[in-house]
Amino acid sequence: MDASLNGRGSDAWARSWTHLRVERRSTAHCRVTFDHPPINTITATTVAELAELVGLIEHDPDLNVVVFDSANPDFYLAHYDTEHDPARTAALGVGPTGMHAWLDLLVRLSRAPVLSIASIRGRARGAGSEFVLACDLRFASRENAVLGQFEVGTGVVPGGGPMARLSRLVGRGRALEILLVADDLDGPRAERYGYVNRLVADDRLDEEVDAIAARVARFDHDALARTKSYVDQVTLPPDSEFPPALADFFGMLGEPRLQARFARLEEMGLNTDSDLERSLGKRVVEAIADA
Amino acid sequence: MDASLNGRGSDAWARSWTHLRVERRSTAHCRVTFDHPPINTITATTVAELAELVGLIEHDPDLNVVVFDSANPDFYLAHYDTEHDPARTAALGVGPTGMHAWLDLLVRLSRAPVLSIASIRGRARGAGSEFVLACDLRFASRENAVLGQFEVGTGVVPGGGPMARLSRLVGRGRALEILLVADDLDGPRAERYGYVNRLVADDRLDEEVDAIAARVARFDHDALARTKSYVDQVTLPPDSEFPPALADFFGMLGEPRLQARFARLEEMGLNTDSDLERSLGKRVVEAIADA
Amino acid sequence: MDASLNGRGSDAWARSWTHLRVERRSTAHCRVTFDHPPINTITATTVAELAELVGLIEHDPDLNVVVFDSANPDFYLAHYDTEHDPARTAALGVGPTGMHAWLDLLVRLSRAPVLSIASIRGRARGAGSEFVLACDLRFASRENAVLGQFEVGTGVVPGGGPMARLSRLVGRGRALEILLVADDLDGPRAERYGYVNRLVADDRLDEEVDAIAARVARFDHDALARTKSYVDQVTLPPDSEFPPALADFFGMLGEPRLQARFARLEEMGLNTDSDLERSLGKRVVEAIADA
Repeated sequence: MDASLNGRGSDAWARSWTHLRVERRSTAHCRVTFDHPPINTITATTVAELAELVGLIEHDPDLNVVVFDSANPDFYLAHYDTEHDPARTAALGVGPTGMHAWLDLLVRLSRAPVLSIASIRGRARGAGSEFVLACDLRFASRENAVLGQFEVGTGVVPGGGPMARLSRLVGRGRALEILLVADDLDGPRAERYGYVNRLVADDRLDEEVDAIAARVARFDHDALARTKSYVDQVTLPPDSEFPPALADFFGMLGEPRLQARFARLEEMGLNTDSDLERSLGKRVVEAIADA
Repeated sequence: MDASLNGRGSDAWARSWTHLRVERRSTAHCRVTFDHPPINTITATTVAELAELVGLIEHDPDLNVVVFDSANPDFYLAHYDTEHDPARTAALGVGPTGMHAWLDLLVRLSRAPVLSIASIRGRARGAGSEFVLACDLRFASRENAVLGQFEVGTGVVPGGGPMARLSRLVGRGRALEILLVADDLDGPRAERYGYVNRLVADDRLDEEVDAIAARVARFDHDALARTKSYVDQVTLPPDSEFPPALADFFGMLGEPRLQARFARLEEMGLNTDSDLERSLGKRVVEAIADA
Repeated sequence: MDASLNGRGSDAWARSWTHLRVERRSTAHCRVTFDHPPINTITATTVAELAELVGLIEHDPDLNVVVFDSANPDFYLAHYDTEHDPARTAALGVGPTGMHAWLDLLVRLSRAPVLSIASIRGRARGAGSEFVLACDLRFASRENAVLGQFEVGTGVVPGGGPMARLSRLVGRGRALEILLVADDLDGPRAERYGYVNRLVADDRLDEEVDAIAARVARFDHDALARTKSYVDQVTLPPDSEFPPALADFFGMLGEPRLQARFARLEEMGLNTDSDLERSLGKRVVEAIADA
């Protein structure tokens, strides 16, 4: 859009990203595209880059709105992948809030004086769902969106805050269904439950989200930031709710039984563009032969 | 399903129930069917049996999921019936939480480390609605479900916690409509309001709820129980919210004017399979001639 | 309906109102119609009259239900209009709660032991939306209703409490969209978001709301008032949430830049029955040329 902007006092924005493409559409409007083939898993690298990006977002006085979309129409953000090296995830350490980098960046994104919008096409499960839940608005493709928290189906507690966020967003009954039945939700069900703001026809999603972002980019930053802050005070979970579940998640994930189960899921196609990944909500139970 | 299970260390489960049928489908999966002709009213006997059943549910380390359905396709749980003997209800005493047996069993069911599912076909009003609101998930027949809190229409405060639960589940506006207009909601409105999780076509309801329960039965109990507990911390009302409204309910019900009104409703067909019971939301106002 | 009632011990109700028409349908049922041509803006006069009316509502022991509708099918309540005299608004002073008259009357209406119903036909934006959010129930014309909080689009924080109320009513994501995208919502979207209880076909709206109000008018006042009070305890924002945003609103509105912007909006047709007012959500951004 405005190529000169990427240079104007924003060298940090223009750095070379690995799992993200960052396009500054205007001083007030930024678009971030997840691009980590084959299925946009979230790894320690993704977390480190997102943590850095959120730092830029929250300290840019000109920025009003940031849109997150995906380069892969089938996968928005698949879920977390330790890449067989949990030490790299552990080594991420804590962020400015004192929480683990993943929780930290989600909490800071939610509180940033900027409107964050997830434009969801394809699958957003596990940590991918946690990411969109930390965004302010969620628009999803009517024909092509899948959301879910499949973790309980594998035997672990979801670690990135969905109990805190879904409980407040969709109410107890629907939060418990999403988390404990642990199955996929298609777009219409996600909209009916309030998991996403609303659906947009797939061939109009990009244009409609662009129009919304361009509109918000014109607004006075101060009115936007203060109004968001009042909503934050009522709706954001206290920070203290997040770390215990993440500790559970890491603890459970380290158990040999769970390690074996995830190894079986990998054999079945986890972390690749496989039928397992395309139908993960339904097929996750196949890995529970030891139950 | 697995008849041997009813005997395996579970004599307590296999006792002879009066208003319930209890089928242990597997170690992890139990189905409870309300069967108290003619219209599944809740009486002191029902409360006592449910209190005992909840004790079994919350202390069974193998149980993941319990489904509550009805043997009567027209009435899930009609409402409370004192059977002209309020002393029996009063004599129920308090449960382990220190609250009246009805509140106590609802609160314990909500907190149990087990997923409870109401599979709703037919009418669930008053205490019947209070029961499904205490369950974790609510699935309802698309064509054949009626929910409502008719109590204010008779002149009493609903006593079993719907102000606490509906306020959090469906928001202030819709909770006030359900409680103060006190009329019936059909399935589609109940789903739109978030009163139930979602609707299932009547001829597929049993099979779909079965499939969900069978799925959850395979999950690791610990992951399920811990995840539910995190949702509980955010979504369950504090215990202190419940007793005042129940005290109001009993106090108001004891007034001669209300006694006369309930006597009139009984003459009109209350507690029987009557047109009044089938259209209770609409017809309850007919009893208010003294207003 | 019952003309004699307007005289029966209710001289205060029968006073001559300027922006309202007040009809006492029965001792328990009152209908208030906004009638302030050309577009039902809310001015200092409207606020003063509503404050007085709420005083009557909250102290009338016979009243069960009050319905608020509009004489103008295109505008329910347009929004606030200072009429070029902000001093008159400032001079409204504080009400019994110690808050500014506008916040005060909204808070007292929400807490009154009476069911308040907004029957919405036409546009309800800004303070008009704030008013309906303070009512207990919101029914809207399916074909002809528009709701929105356009304030952030003009550069100010909404002052009458929508951050507090929408956050609790529709959840964080949808509240942030309504407030920060600041665009109009039509009836179907408002219903899907929970902004209104539900839609009614335009040609049946009056009759259905009348039937609901007539039903509630027959109920025992004590059961209704106590039940509402239990919901209030769970769902009403603490008073302390309201004044800071109103202080922001007044502070921002007084800035020369905002004064110039509102002058431009007036030239474009603000406060008159203009295309700008009919499409305010979409067109508000046209005034932000200085951004």
